[in-house]
Amino acid sequence: MSYPQTSFWRTTVAPNSLIGKRRNTVSSVTLLYQLDVLKKTGRYDAFKLKWNAVYDEPPMVWPIPNHLFWDSDVAKWIEGACYFLQQRSNKEIDAAVQELVAMIHDAQQPDGYINIHFTVVEPGKRFTNLRDFHELYNAGHLIEAAISHEQYYKNGTFLHPILKYVDLLCTTFGPNPNQIHGYPGHPEIEMALLRLYTLTENPKYLNLGRYFITERGNPRGQDGRHFFDVESEKRGDDPNKRPAFYPESRCLWYHQAQAPLAEQQTIEGHSVRGTYLLSSVADLLRIDGNASEPKLTEAVYRLWDNMVNCKMYITGGIGAIKQWEGFGPNYFLPQGTDEGGCYSETCAAIGVMMFAERMLQLDLDAKFADVMELCFYNAVLTAMSHDGRRFTYENQLASSEKNLSQREEWFTVACCPPNVLRLLGQIGGYIWTYQTQSTDEHATISVHLYISSKVQLEVGGGIIELEQESNWPMEGEIKFVLRRQSTTEIDIKLRIPAWAKVYNLSPECGEATTHKGYLKIPSAWLRNNNTFTISIPLEARLVTPHPFTNQNVIAIARGPVIYCAEDVDNTWVKDHFKVFNMEQKHQ
Amino acid sequence: MSYPQTSFWRTTVAPNSLIGKRRNTVSSVTLLYQLDVLKKTGRYDAFKLKWNAVYDEPPMVWPIPNHLFWDSDVAKWIEGACYFLQQRSNKEIDAAVQELVAMIHDAQQPDGYINIHFTVVEPGKRFTNLRDFHELYNAGHLIEAAISHEQYYKNGTFLHPILKYVDLLCTTFGPNPNQIHGYPGHPEIEMALLRLYTLTENPKYLNLGRYFITERGNPRGQDGRHFFDVESEKRGDDPNKRPAFYPESRCLWYHQAQAPLAEQQTIEGHSVRGTYLLSSVADLLRIDGNASEPKLTEAVYRLWDNMVNCKMYITGGIGAIKQWEGFGPNYFLPQGTDEGGCYSETCAAIGVMMFAERMLQLDLDAKFADVMELCFYNAVLTAMSHDGRRFTYENQLASSEKNLSQREEWFTVACCPPNVLRLLGQIGGYIWTYQTQSTDEHATISVHLYISSKVQLEVGGGIIELEQESNWPMEGEIKFVLRRQSTTEIDIKLRIPAWAKVYNLSPECGEATTHKGYLKIPSAWLRNNNTFTISIPLEARLVTPHPFTNQNVIAIARGPVIYCAEDVDNTWVKDHFKVFNMEQKHQ
Repeated sequence: MSYPQTSFWRTTVAPNSLIGKRRNTVSSVTLLYQLDVLKKTGRYDAFKLKWNAVYDEPPMVWPIPNHLFWDSDVAKWIEGACYFLQQRSNKEIDAAVQELVAMIHDAQQPDGYINIHFTVVEPGKRFTNLRDFHELYNAGHLIEAAISHEQYYKNGTFLHPILKYVDLLCTTFGPNPNQIHGYPGHPEIEMALLRLYTLTENPKYLNLGRYFITERGNPRGQDGRHFFDVESEKRGDDPNKRPAFYPESRCLWYHQAQAPLAEQQTIEGHSVRGTYLLSSVADLLRIDGNASEPKLTEAVYRLWDNMVNCKMYITGGIGAIKQWEGFGPNYFLPQGTDEGGCYSETCAAIGVMMFAERMLQLDLDAKFADVMELCFYNAVLTAMSHDGRRFTYENQLASSEKNLSQREEWFTVACCPPNVLRLLGQIGGYIWTYQTQSTDEHATISVHLYISSKVQLEVGGGIIELEQESNWPMEGEIKFVLRRQSTTEIDIKLRIPAWAKVYNLSPECGEATTHKGYLKIPSAWLRNNNTFTISIPLEARLVTPHPFTNQNVIAIARGPVIYCAEDVDNTWVKDHFKVFNMEQKHQ
Repeated sequence: MSYPQTSFWRTTVAPNSLIGKRRNTVSSVTLLYQLDVLKKTGRYDAFKLKWNAVYDEPPMVWPIPNHLFWDSDVAKWIEGACYFLQQRSNKEIDAAVQELVAMIHDAQQPDGYINIHFTVVEPGKRFTNLRDFHELYNAGHLIEAAISHEQYYKNGTFLHPILKYVDLLCTTFGPNPNQIHGYPGHPEIEMALLRLYTLTENPKYLNLGRYFITERGNPRGQDGRHFFDVESEKRGDDPNKRPAFYPESRCLWYHQAQAPLAEQQTIEGHSVRGTYLLSSVADLLRIDGNASEPKLTEAVYRLWDNMVNCKMYITGGIGAIKQWEGFGPNYFLPQGTDEGGCYSETCAAIGVMMFAERMLQLDLDAKFADVMELCFYNAVLTAMSHDGRRFTYENQLASSEKNLSQREEWFTVACCPPNVLRLLGQIGGYIWTYQTQSTDEHATISVHLYISSKVQLEVGGGIIELEQESNWPMEGEIKFVLRRQSTTEIDIKLRIPAWAKVYNLSPECGEATTHKGYLKIPSAWLRNNNTFTISIPLEARLVTPHPFTNQNVIAIARGPVIYCAEDVDNTWVKDHFKVFNMEQKHQ
C-alpha cells in the first residue's frame, strides 16, 4: 500500500459526504469540462505533431514557450481520468483516453522519444535544456499517466511505449562517461521512476530515480563543474539574459540545485519543484530503507520543518513569492499579492500533501497528517469552484483591489486544474494506510483523514472492511465499523489533530495508547468492539501569526478549517478588510 | 549655515581628539594615498580623453562599464581635497587639484558637456541611458566638487565650466515638450543643483533640482508612459536582458522610481540612491519652506521611519541585500553575507548621515542626530583602517569563512573610499548648526555631536566662539566654553541621546528645558555661566534585536558605540562566533 495512486481503489468515499460530492462534480462535470478545454486549446490534438499557431506566439514568461507543458496537461488529465474510470465508467472519457494514448503512441519517435515541443518545434534540441524546458518533467507525468492507465486498462497500450521511452532515458542519463550527468530543472520524474520501479521491479528505474535525486546540485557533476553551468554554456546562452523568473543570474536555488540535497539547510526556490523533489526523496528513503541514507533522512526532516515552521501560511499554502512561484525568506509571509507575497500556488499545496503523505509512510507522526489535512481543506479544495469549472492558481489570503481573489476558467500554464482532478481521483489513498506483518497475522490500519468512506483490505485470506462515517469537518464525531472475514488481528490508529485539546473514544478503551499523535486501539479490544466512535470537539479558535511574520492579523479556525471573511457576507466592508492593515501601518 | 559642506570651515576639530586624529591621517596619508591610486588606475588621466585599455574590459557587473564612475571618483577626491586644503595647505594636493581641474576644463565639449565615457567610449549616446549609466550622477559629483573648489580657490576655474555644463542640462531636461522628461537612475545631482542654487541664487538650478525630484516615478512622464520604459525602448533594449543587479524585469523600485516619491510607502531599492534622494528632498523642503509640500513632507518622515525602524542594522548600516546593494523586506536583517544579508555599504551609511543632518535642519529632533552619530562611529569611521590606506565597502556585522570581514586597498567601483574622505573633511559641519533671528539679536547653537572642537560664528557684528572638549565616546563628560565679542543673545541646545537614562548639567540650571531630545540652555543663564559641563554617563548596555528580525544575537553598546567581539581578542573562537547561531538553528 505504498502509493495512494495505487491503493485508492480499495476505498469507497461516501457519495453524499462533502468530499464525495466534490468527487461527483469532478467525475460528472470537471473531467469533461477539462477535456473540452484540452480540445479547444489545441492540447488534445498536439500529439498529432502538427504545427499549431500557438507555437509561434512569443513566450508570456520568457524563455518558456507557452505550449511547453502541454504534454503534462494531457498526461495529468489521463491520469486523473483513469482514477475516476476505475470507480465509475464513462464512455466519453474512456474513448478520449484511448484516442489520446493512441496519439501519444503514434507520436513516439523510433528511438522511443516522446515530446511535443522537441519533436515539432525544436527538433534536434532534445536534452539541451533540462534546466528550463520541462522535458523530463513532461516525461515524468507521462510515466505516471501510463502507470495509472495500466492499472485500469491492463493492456500495455500506454505502458509499453512509455517503457521504451524510459529505456531511452536510462541510456541517456547516468554516471557513466558517455551519459549526460544531468537532472531535470523541474523534479517530477523522480517520483514517476520510483513508482515505475515498484510496478515493474526493474532496478534500472530505481537507479535512474536515485541518480536524479542524489546527483542534483553536485557542484562538479559535469566536466568538473555544475551541470546547469555546462549545459547553459553549451547552449551558448547570453550570460546577461536570464529567465523572467530568475531573480539573479545563475539562480541555482530556484531549482533546488544550489547544493546536493543532503547539504541543503533551508527549503528554497520554486515550491512545486521543492515539494515534488522532497516527495521523491521520501519515496527513495522508504524504498532504500530509511537508515541507508542518514544525511538524506536528516535533510528531508530539516526541510520539512523549515517549510512548516517558517515558510507556510496558516492554510497550508506555501510559496510566498510570485516571481519565482516559491519560498521567500523565513517568516516572509505577507497576506496578499499587493503586499509582495502570498502566491501560495494550488499545485504547491498539492505538493505539500504528497510530501506529507510520503512522510507518514516513513514515520507515523500526526504532524504530517495535520498539515496534509490543513492543505486539503484550505488550499486545495478551495482551488475549484463548486460547479467544477473554475479554478485558482494563486491562493492569496487577502484579496485586494490590485488583485481580486477570483477563480478562472483556465490558465496558459495549466498545471493546477488537472492536478486538483488527479488528487480528488486518488484521495481514497490519502485517507488511511495499512501495514501487515510478514505473516499476515497482524495488521494495522492508520486513519489519517476523517472522510466518510470505507476501505476493504485482503489480509490473512479474507476481507477486512473498515468504514468511517461523519460530518467532518463540520462535526467532530466519527463512527467506525470494523467488519472482518479474516482471523488477522487488527490494530487501528486514529489521528488526534494537534489542535484538539480533548477527544473521547466510545465505548471507553483503557488499553488505548497515544504515540506521535495517533491513538492506537489494540486488536484485543477491537475483537469485542467492532463499532466505536471517536469524538473530537470542534471548537472555534483564534489563531495569530508567529510574531516574526509581522502580520497584524488574526484568523478563526475550527477543526482543520480556516475561515474566510468574505466581502459578500460583510456588505459594510469596502476594502476587503484591508483597511485594518493600512490603519495599523499608518499608526 | 544650511550645508555642512559650506559651514564646516568655521569649526576647528581638536587635532588630538579621536576624530582629529582620523582627520590628520586623512590629511597626511589618505589624500595622497588616494591620489596615488587615482593615478595608478588611470582615473587621474582619464579626463585627457585618451583610450584606456580598461575601456575594453567586459563589465564586472553587466551592463555597467567598469570605468563608468571614474568622473565621480575624481570629483569626490577633488571635493574632499578642497575641504582639507581649506584647513591645511599642501602643495602636492593643490597641484593635483589644479591639474585635474584643468584637464576637466579641457575635456569639456563645445556645448558644455563633460563625461569621460560618453565622450571617449560611446560618443553620440549621451543622455540615452539615464537609468543605468550614471551620467547625471557623475555630473552631480562634478558640480559638488566645483562648488567646494570655488569655496577654497575663489577663481571660477572649475565653477565656470561646470555652470556651462549645468546650463546644458537645464536646457536638456525639464517639463517642456522639447525637453527630456527624465531624471537620473542614481540620484545625486539633485543635492548638487540645490546647493548650486544656494550658492548662485539662480532659480533655474532650483527648478531643475525640483523637477528631477518631483518628476521621478511619474508613471506617465514621457509620451504618456514611464520615462524609464520609453528610454529603454528607444535604446532597443532586449526585454529579456537585464542588469545583473535587477532582481526582476522592469525593476523600477531599484531606483526609487516605482511611484512618485510622495506616494512611496516604504523605502526600497538601492540604499545609496535612496538616502541621496531623500537628502535632496529634505533640502528642497527646507528651501521651499517645509509646509509648501505637505505630501512630500509626509513621505520623507514616513520613509525615514521605515528605514530606521524596519530596515536598519544596530550600527546604523542599511541595505541588507548585496545583489541590489539595498533594502530588503521589513526586518530582514541577517548578520552576515553568508546568511543572505548585511551588505551595509559604507556609502549608504554616509547617505544616512547626510539624510539625518538634513532632517535636523528641518526639525531639531535628537532622533535624527542619534542615528547620525550611530552611523558615524559604527558604519563610517570603521570603514577606514587606522593607517588610512584600507577601506571597507561592505560592513557586515558577522564575519564568516565565506566572507571574512577585511578592509581592501581599493575597489573597481570606488565610491566608498573618497566618500569617507569627503565626509571627514566636512565633519565640522555636522557637529552643530546655528540659527539667528533676522535681527541678529538672538541666535541658537544646536550641538549634535560631541567632538572636541570649537566653532566661530560672526553674529551681531562680533564673534561668538563655542568650544567643547571631551574624551567622547570613551568618556561622557563634555566641557563647554562660550566666548563672545558680541551682544547677541545665545541659546545653546545640547543633544541628549535617547539611550542616556540620566544626564547632569553643571553648574545646575533650573531654567533649562528639554524638547525633542535637546536640552535648551537659555541665554539669560549663559550670560552668567560661560563655562558649563554636561555629563552623560556611558554605561554599557545589552541590546537585543527586534523579535521580527529573528536574530538570535545580543550586542553590547556603550554610548554611541556598538562593540565588536573580534577573533583576535578571543583566541578560543574557531568560527567567528558563528557556532552559537548554528547551534541554535539545529535545535
